[in-house]
Amino acid sequence: MMTDETLKKNLPIGVFDSGVGGFTVVRALRKYLPGENIIYLGDTARVPYGTKSPETVIRYSINNAKFLDSLGIKLLVVACNTASAHSITALRDNFNIPVVGVIEPGARAAVKNTISGNVGVIGTRGTIESHAYETHIREKSVSTVTTGGIPCPLFVPLAEEGWIEGEIPEKTAVHYMNELKKVIPEMDTLVLGCTHYPLLKKIISEAALKVFEREIKLIDSGVSASYVIEEILREKELFNDNSSGGTLDTYVTDTSRISEIGELFLGEPLSNVQRVDI
Amino acid sequence: MMTDETLKKNLPIGVFDSGVGGFTVVRALRKYLPGENIIYLGDTARVPYGTKSPETVIRYSINNAKFLDSLGIKLLVVACNTASAHSITALRDNFNIPVVGVIEPGARAAVKNTISGNVGVIGTRGTIESHAYETHIREKSVSTVTTGGIPCPLFVPLAEEGWIEGEIPEKTAVHYMNELKKVIPEMDTLVLGCTHYPLLKKIISEAALKVFEREIKLIDSGVSASYVIEEILREKELFNDNSSGGTLDTYVTDTSRISEIGELFLGEPLSNVQRVDI
Repeated sequence: MMTDETLKKNLPIGVFDSGVGGFTVVRALRKYLPGENIIYLGDTARVPYGTKSPETVIRYSINNAKFLDSLGIKLLVVACNTASAHSITALRDNFNIPVVGVIEPGARAAVKNTISGNVGVIGTRGTIESHAYETHIREKSVSTVTTGGIPCPLFVPLAEEGWIEGEIPEKTAVHYMNELKKVIPEMDTLVLGCTHYPLLKKIISEAALKVFEREIKLIDSGVSASYVIEEILREKELFNDNSSGGTLDTYVTDTSRISEIGELFLGEPLSNVQRVDI
Repeated sequence: MMTDETLKKNLPIGVFDSGVGGFTVVRALRKYLPGENIIYLGDTARVPYGTKSPETVIRYSINNAKFLDSLGIKLLVVACNTASAHSITALRDNFNIPVVGVIEPGARAAVKNTISGNVGVIGTRGTIESHAYETHIREKSVSTVTTGGIPCPLFVPLAEEGWIEGEIPEKTAVHYMNELKKVIPEMDTLVLGCTHYPLLKKIISEAALKVFEREIKLIDSGVSASYVIEEILREKELFNDNSSGGTLDTYVTDTSRISEIGELFLGEPLSNVQRVDI
């Protein structure tokens, strides 16, 4: 018979995103917290959130969280950068479970890593214009950290098409790194501020080395969030180290291309996908 | 005093699109029908339509048309390819004015132009997978016309960023033309099946010449629609040849970046922009 404590540990982590990009966060969770059960909700019917008003993004985020909470989760992960920028406070006010976004952990990891005190951020136009990473980086710095960021709009379709190597993606990455060098020339740490970008890690890293002529540490916010989640779960004695591996259940609000793109971002076969109206 | 007939002629043409891309259609209308008054509605809060279900697209299209119709219009133009693919019949059933989409005129122009009987189509994944152009091309052909299409997902962010020349856009266009050659090697006519693509006309045309080793005629559906609209208006005696030039009023459902991108697509300064909830 399972004790109450074991039952609580077995509860899944709920993860939501505006679409399929959040699977890169799930990929990190599956790697670093392999015993955890996960329920993923991709709001693929309403993607993208980046072009929508903060009020709308908050409303969608609360709807998503309500759905996941109703299934019984022990912790909520906001995998979407836009939703993390706008909705964390509202979610913490409305739900009685720990809420982890991707921006705070990413900012913390960047501050911890930088030696020159120069952190670059790349993301969608919405994320860059919100200055959410910059705000959190400033909050988390004891000494002065200079930040600068640019949007990289071509990286999303490149990632979604799986077009992650070859001349065009490589030259595009070099182009963006040249733009970034203009705003933050002494950068030694770069935050990948969009869930799609980890797929392009290799070419971004190579382009950064070429343009900045030094090794640039890339911060994958999904990986950073995994560490924060592990800390919280261990502290609350909710960490699941089930050695036979956790489960993954996926819900989407629209099924278009979900398996094909989902697996690209997740890095493993996708099963148990259900469509849901929320 | 104005006669009833003059009043009717002075009524504006209503144009809607999922976002700002439809301004390329307005650009064609302003060029070929310079006397016409135009009201444009960009549903920028709900963009893109391409990833949404046909039922949702029909619902949004009817909402958009209701708004424009309430302002008093003499003809409705559906500038969005996705909305044209799904909603034309529903709109014709629900509104008592002529309704012109971009797909029928584009298909008609392609059939009229092709000599080899091989027509290529490029567009968003949604438009290509709907096979809407192919269906209309087949309907309009007396002899056999072979069609083939591919999605070009990078063209949308390239157009929206105004990144319409240089090595990366050029190589991207060559890449897509090589993909297209695999599905329709004898192509002599290419339909630009996305409102964003006319901005990239020059590099698409050059890439097509390079890859197919012949002049390829590009069909701009906005231009084709303008001819159809002129025909209808002349036939109904509603054509406005006001020599002092027509007006343009713009409504959007979200104002993010509207002026900046709007002017890029429209090719002239944008004024009279109002936000509206529909």
